[in-house]
Amino acid sequence: MARRIAERVWAPGALIPGEEVLAVEFGCARATVNRALQELARGGVLVRKRKAGTRVALHPMREARFVIPIVRQEIENKGGAYQFRLVSNVVEKAPACVTKRLGITKAKDMLHVRCLHLSDEKPYQYEDRWINLDAVPAIRHETFETVSPNEWLVTHSPFSQAEIVFHAGLADPDEADMLDLGVNDPVFVIERLTYLPQKPITFVRMIHPGSHRMVTKL
Amino acid sequence: MARRIAERVWAPGALIPGEEVLAVEFGCARATVNRALQELARGGVLVRKRKAGTRVALHPMREARFVIPIVRQEIENKGGAYQFRLVSNVVEKAPACVTKRLGITKAKDMLHVRCLHLSDEKPYQYEDRWINLDAVPAIRHETFETVSPNEWLVTHSPFSQAEIVFHAGLADPDEADMLDLGVNDPVFVIERLTYLPQKPITFVRMIHPGSHRMVTKL
Repeated sequence: MARRIAERVWAPGALIPGEEVLAVEFGCARATVNRALQELARGGVLVRKRKAGTRVALHPMREARFVIPIVRQEIENKGGAYQFRLVSNVVEKAPACVTKRLGITKAKDMLHVRCLHLSDEKPYQYEDRWINLDAVPAIRHETFETVSPNEWLVTHSPFSQAEIVFHAGLADPDEADMLDLGVNDPVFVIERLTYLPQKPITFVRMIHPGSHRMVTKL
Repeated sequence: MARRIAERVWAPGALIPGEEVLAVEFGCARATVNRALQELARGGVLVRKRKAGTRVALHPMREARFVIPIVRQEIENKGGAYQFRLVSNVVEKAPACVTKRLGITKAKDMLHVRCLHLSDEKPYQYEDRWINLDAVPAIRHETFETVSPNEWLVTHSPFSQAEIVFHAGLADPDEADMLDLGVNDPVFVIERLTYLPQKPITFVRMIHPGSHRMVTKL
């Protein structure tokens, strides 16, 4: 069906055949056709309307998707052996640049955790994280000896909203030291804010060497 | 519903109430509940099974999504005035690094188009693109006087698959010149390969100044 749309056998705006017809034609279950149509609609190439049927999108808005992974799983999925090293774990006053991003107006003590994620013993990601103890008080006494803050939060602190920012930068001396880079080598930075309605949870900067490639397919 | 899941009013793995019950409780149409459930399932926090009902995911795999935009629209959506400047437009032998990425094994003439996208007269993105003329022969005689190659392809050449790679780099002399940067300033690079089954269409490198922020929410 994707090929028919791409090659304009099914033209932009055209109504496509019903699920039963397609199921017979492709020799598969109607549920399978339904799932494929859902996938295509999600990708923005089909527009499905209740009762009005399914049409080829006139202006396809292609959506790429990427999973927000646990960094351990991300490394293991690429075939690397995962390790992490805790760098520091203290409650301290958060700098204004952090509280501002979290929408917190007053000065505030937060849990500041820094750690290094390694793949095959090479630095993969340096994580510099601030955690709002009001949102996750149980994390205060966690030692992060066996589980990284990333993994702890994913499994203990579901969030409802997140903002993710990707950008390029140059390694500062601390980042260069952590990631085995030279100062001013390029770094790929992901910043993530997660929150519940009215309650910020955490702000994290994840810094990768410039050689890191984030790949997504659609 | 997102809050109930996040705050564990609905625990991981729990079966949630049916659509009719939720519609009554929230005082809205069942179709509205259905759309919200679909959104949450798409975000990976709910797992919906035909007949077996809807459960809170045990291991939520959060998926972020971003739209693949026409760069003109991306700039206009941010409130900028869009302009583009064609830098070069020639048919020439593609370098091996390009053909290899496109899965083309023989040396091949391809359309090489370079252009600069500007926002409020400032360089926003430098686009360096190779196009497979076998896939889109009609583009050979396009002058790109009124429409950028990006916009031409989005509207004329639907694709079925794409691979997108994000990484950080340092501006080379050509990129620095185009983007008004210093050599070795950081750049944010997006590479995109698009293809039909068995037919590569285009390989493009989109280079942004390091100050560029790609933002996505979920």
